[in-house]
Amino acid sequence: MHMEVLAMATIKDVAARAGVSLGTASRVLSGSSQTSPDSRSRVLAAAAELQYVANGPARALRRARTDVLGLLLPDIRNPFFSELAHAAEQEARRLGYTVLLANADEDRDQEAAYLRTFASQRIDGLLLAPQQGGSPELESLHASGLPLVLVDRAVRGLDAPLLSTDNAQGVAQALAWLQAGGHRDVAFVGGPAAISTGVERRDAYLAGRAAHGISTDDALVDAGDFQLGSGTDAMLRILDRGVRPTAVFGADGLMTAGAMRALRQRLGDEARAVEVVSFDDLDWFDLRSPGISAVVNDAAEIGRLGVAALADVIAGRPVASQRIATTFVDRRPAGGTA
Amino acid sequence: MHMEVLAMATIKDVAARAGVSLGTASRVLSGSSQTSPDSRSRVLAAAAELQYVANGPARALRRARTDVLGLLLPDIRNPFFSELAHAAEQEARRLGYTVLLANADEDRDQEAAYLRTFASQRIDGLLLAPQQGGSPELESLHASGLPLVLVDRAVRGLDAPLLSTDNAQGVAQALAWLQAGGHRDVAFVGGPAAISTGVERRDAYLAGRAAHGISTDDALVDAGDFQLGSGTDAMLRILDRGVRPTAVFGADGLMTAGAMRALRQRLGDEARAVEVVSFDDLDWFDLRSPGISAVVNDAAEIGRLGVAALADVIAGRPVASQRIATTFVDRRPAGGTA
Repeated sequence: MHMEVLAMATIKDVAARAGVSLGTASRVLSGSSQTSPDSRSRVLAAAAELQYVANGPARALRRARTDVLGLLLPDIRNPFFSELAHAAEQEARRLGYTVLLANADEDRDQEAAYLRTFASQRIDGLLLAPQQGGSPELESLHASGLPLVLVDRAVRGLDAPLLSTDNAQGVAQALAWLQAGGHRDVAFVGGPAAISTGVERRDAYLAGRAAHGISTDDALVDAGDFQLGSGTDAMLRILDRGVRPTAVFGADGLMTAGAMRALRQRLGDEARAVEVVSFDDLDWFDLRSPGISAVVNDAAEIGRLGVAALADVIAGRPVASQRIATTFVDRRPAGGTA
Repeated sequence: MHMEVLAMATIKDVAARAGVSLGTASRVLSGSSQTSPDSRSRVLAAAAELQYVANGPARALRRARTDVLGLLLPDIRNPFFSELAHAAEQEARRLGYTVLLANADEDRDQEAAYLRTFASQRIDGLLLAPQQGGSPELESLHASGLPLVLVDRAVRGLDAPLLSTDNAQGVAQALAWLQAGGHRDVAFVGGPAAISTGVERRDAYLAGRAAHGISTDDALVDAGDFQLGSGTDAMLRILDRGVRPTAVFGADGLMTAGAMRALRQRLGDEARAVEVVSFDDLDWFDLRSPGISAVVNDAAEIGRLGVAALADVIAGRPVASQRIATTFVDRRPAGGTA
């Protein structure tokens, strides 16, 4: 499939000038040892005459195995993704790869810039937790034949294996916990409507809340971008509507922390009476009193399986998409709600 | 400076075979446009005859500007470093670069593997927060002339600009806060003795404690590796010696969190009576009651200045090492210690 990338006008020109086949020109420029000294000499001379050298080596090297994987993440400051990266790297190391990371910072333009960077670097494959909707850069990279596996988030219409969380299961666990706590007025801080995890968690919550005795008043529902500050902003908007939730459910760990900050700003010490549940368990959720209950979204398992799947794609083995089960940590003090 | 790297036996052979100067051979193989078609043709033909091509492109590309920087960090799960990475990336983007990250996971072997990876990738320069003592890979990369700037941690004997925290100032701020709280029995969870930040914080603490009315009993002092679990282990060792500290000072944010976990395991609810101060302020330190006071170690500023310094090195401008000032956030409730 890389042949299509190499078979651009410039390499055709080189092959024609050197009087060799396209395959030979491609092999020479990729550093293959399966070429004769004579054809190497002619191809490289032709490349020099055509000033092909400036662009050539990068493409040529693309074909050589480098044992380096790319990992493009939405937000390196999000503990879910730094944990995923850590586990991915350990699995990669076990399989003989190193991993170069890039951080899209929940920004489509920045993601596109990094996809261009990875396209020009020497990597054997890319593990990607994408921004919304995909991009021309992503389609181009995928079409180039670079092995690609998605983690956490889907891209509509992109045919690549996806290792993701069972978001519906995780939301069902949180809903059951909210119901057991007797909550009716629950604030929900969801993720972006354009990211699959945001959509799946919100849809599962909206569809399930009534059956769990939770108010369907949409004044209690808002959304952020999965980063901390957006959770604060969303919670402030909810409080500004005059509702007084007895519990908050954040669609990721950072927005949950951000929502807690908003509660503290507006309610002071009374904020501690508002129960908090998070989709994602953060390191410090057990260090607060009361502890924060959480859907355990297994970042490490997703990272490990993602790298294993990418290694399979690189090796030409079949790979299936997979949903990873969530678990739930109930940190509600004995005796019910605070 | 790259000339020294290129001037290995193989490129000398290529130059001799092509009948050109070493400089010309170097320029051709680096893809420079300042070469004649004739010399390009001869050098590339000679390279082909000598089978130089297999190794050539990687070295050749080294000289071509890629607008990609490498950032090799000790631990991507440490919020200090993920914040540093985020700020570095924003500054890099402002200057027209993208940043590829790698995570040493506080492991020398893993760092060495990534230094080899970066040596084979197309980057314009490397920003590095090193593991202890340096390595042959680091010396080799530095000797190759790759622009290099250190952040956070020094390497003895390595002549590269360093952007680091004023560790002595930060420790002095924590000592003053401990003294104001009337603490005598303070547990200190330090960093590794082989990492400059570990040494500087420990030395400043040990030298300053007596003057601040703090016990000099070394049973109260232990150390970890800057990761969370090591803080728990160190704190458990301190408690196992039978001492009962009224306050804990952790030499980074993760070890501070780890020490809190140990206190909770051993002391249960009484753990809340132990005051906590951290070198590094984490996102959630204000969300606990009582809040955790902290030395604000300005990761974002170090990341920004590090990238700016690296851009200067790449451009051949002079760069000086710099210590970044710390500030302090006092979250002790009004009325003194808990």
